[in-house]
Amino acid sequence: MTKSDYKQLSDLGEFGLIDHLTYSFQIKHSSTIKAVGDDAAVLDFKSKQIVVTTDLLVEGIHFNLSYVPLKHLGYKAVAVNLSDVCAMNAEPLQITVSIAVSNRFTLEALDDLYSGIHAACERYQIDLIGGDTTSSKQGLLISITAIGVLNDDTKPVYRSGAQENDLICVSGDLGAAYMGLQILERERRLFEQDASFKPSLDPYSYIIERQLKPEPRADIVSLLKHEKINITSMIDISDGLSSELMHICKASDKGCKIFEDKVPIAQETKDAAKDLNMNPIIAALNGGEDYELLFTTPLSSFEGINKIPGISIIGHISASDKNLLMITANGESIELKAQGWNALE
Amino acid sequence: MTKSDYKQLSDLGEFGLIDHLTYSFQIKHSSTIKAVGDDAAVLDFKSKQIVVTTDLLVEGIHFNLSYVPLKHLGYKAVAVNLSDVCAMNAEPLQITVSIAVSNRFTLEALDDLYSGIHAACERYQIDLIGGDTTSSKQGLLISITAIGVLNDDTKPVYRSGAQENDLICVSGDLGAAYMGLQILERERRLFEQDASFKPSLDPYSYIIERQLKPEPRADIVSLLKHEKINITSMIDISDGLSSELMHICKASDKGCKIFEDKVPIAQETKDAAKDLNMNPIIAALNGGEDYELLFTTPLSSFEGINKIPGISIIGHISASDKNLLMITANGESIELKAQGWNALE
Repeated sequence: MTKSDYKQLSDLGEFGLIDHLTYSFQIKHSSTIKAVGDDAAVLDFKSKQIVVTTDLLVEGIHFNLSYVPLKHLGYKAVAVNLSDVCAMNAEPLQITVSIAVSNRFTLEALDDLYSGIHAACERYQIDLIGGDTTSSKQGLLISITAIGVLNDDTKPVYRSGAQENDLICVSGDLGAAYMGLQILERERRLFEQDASFKPSLDPYSYIIERQLKPEPRADIVSLLKHEKINITSMIDISDGLSSELMHICKASDKGCKIFEDKVPIAQETKDAAKDLNMNPIIAALNGGEDYELLFTTPLSSFEGINKIPGISIIGHISASDKNLLMITANGESIELKAQGWNALE
Repeated sequence: MTKSDYKQLSDLGEFGLIDHLTYSFQIKHSSTIKAVGDDAAVLDFKSKQIVVTTDLLVEGIHFNLSYVPLKHLGYKAVAVNLSDVCAMNAEPLQITVSIAVSNRFTLEALDDLYSGIHAACERYQIDLIGGDTTSSKQGLLISITAIGVLNDDTKPVYRSGAQENDLICVSGDLGAAYMGLQILERERRLFEQDASFKPSLDPYSYIIERQLKPEPRADIVSLLKHEKINITSMIDISDGLSSELMHICKASDKGCKIFEDKVPIAQETKDAAKDLNMNPIIAALNGGEDYELLFTTPLSSFEGINKIPGISIIGHISASDKNLLMITANGESIELKAQGWNALE
């Protein structure tokens, strides 16, 4: 980029830039009384409870722009926050988006980022209600706060409600996002060694999409409600199945037993793991970023759960004096450890 | 700091660190159903409207740790968000706090930062309900979202409601925070030239405190409500009086006329301006960071306003075809321009 591109950005000024980036966002919900443009947004949820969650994404820590297109990054930044709202059994409605950008970002780059944010807001019917736009000394940083509502008789679902003998369920499949990241990292290294290298990502399109464009499982929350499933605890899988199981078991003061051959892993994930000489169950247990839902429900929900496509029962909750165990495909019992990603390393 | 200090931080892990930093925060409000510790906080405002605002503070852009103690920074980061809530005529109740820190920050440094956040939460009776903690490649970044409630028959006050002939009022005094910054910058430069230099900040304690420890004017919001003042528009003064007047006049499609000798400026601010050979009215108009409230009210509020200590009537709103004017002390009429701080430069 040239100096003149940057001038364009600072010449717009903070308020001009916010106007430019947000003018195409339409308000969709009657609970949004006032969105962008004053000291604060005004919201009205009538007598309903709400949930609030926030996430901070830092360039070089959470994403690498050498293989993450800015549009995908914008989409994903919204998606991961909506996923937290879904994990509370709530319907996501509003977000604020704050960004800090260094002077290497052009207006066109920010337009790309916001086109992804816009796409996610359209896909999930989300109102953009505020934010902040500033410079950074280095790199891009995105801070999003998401707000959701607990409609009608919907109760929030915490991590702490799992009961002994509850079924442990997960939506979708696990480990794909992590394997997608491994493939992207491999291609980046090959490209760095030889700039004429042409990546052939076709066989990996599913797992790469899982890495670049995760989808919050608002559909699962709706289906569970429709089937009147009693969810006793829930969490979204951002840091890997092991880590999330530990959160639920710790908060609920319980143990658990899951079965390796019940953990849902897509064929594309298994294929990529084979190509990279890795064990796909490790990706599912410790990989993270799948943004599927992990939840528990009483045994009596068995039939209801089976009516919902794409939910796997992977084990059950055990007494508080029991460990967190996985029974492997050949019948061994191993203890689960959280080896999920540490954002502070 | 040594490598071992840093190890301490990453060894705690993200969840251990959040626990460590937040365990001393008590929940104060019945609207906070669930705070830190799940995928999202759960809030219940019954049938009341709420306001939501968010701010991003970046080291080297918004603050300089060579003269801002971390405890003050934590306090100020909360205060500036509460100020936005107050500017909507709402009562601040909850915040989320996200931080990104580079590896030069020790656990003790983060403890200092959070002791300031804690002090502000105690002073203003705020519940800490969530956040995110992560690494940065460089420096410290703080992202705060604040939530407030519009109690009983309180209506949100926008920037857009100013009417012709309304009185223009400000709380407190202006320009002090900017002059405090100039003094701190001067002392830093002198210290850099001569490490044995001992700053003598005593005569400047008021303006330095205004820079380092601004207070949101929740008291003014309460007093205006108590006196049943009809506030037609309101904004907090973060970027200087000129810039905020322009926001109100633009949003309300009006002009304005203010009087230089009515703009409240503390003696300490005038003294410091004299020492630095500056004009104090420039600090008031363009300096920013005072976090006082600027509001408009019909002429009929004149008596009620005079009952509230520390409010100055500085002029009035004019018709939409009029400019934004300031009548100087010697009777000249000059046009106001926003020369407030541009976060993108």
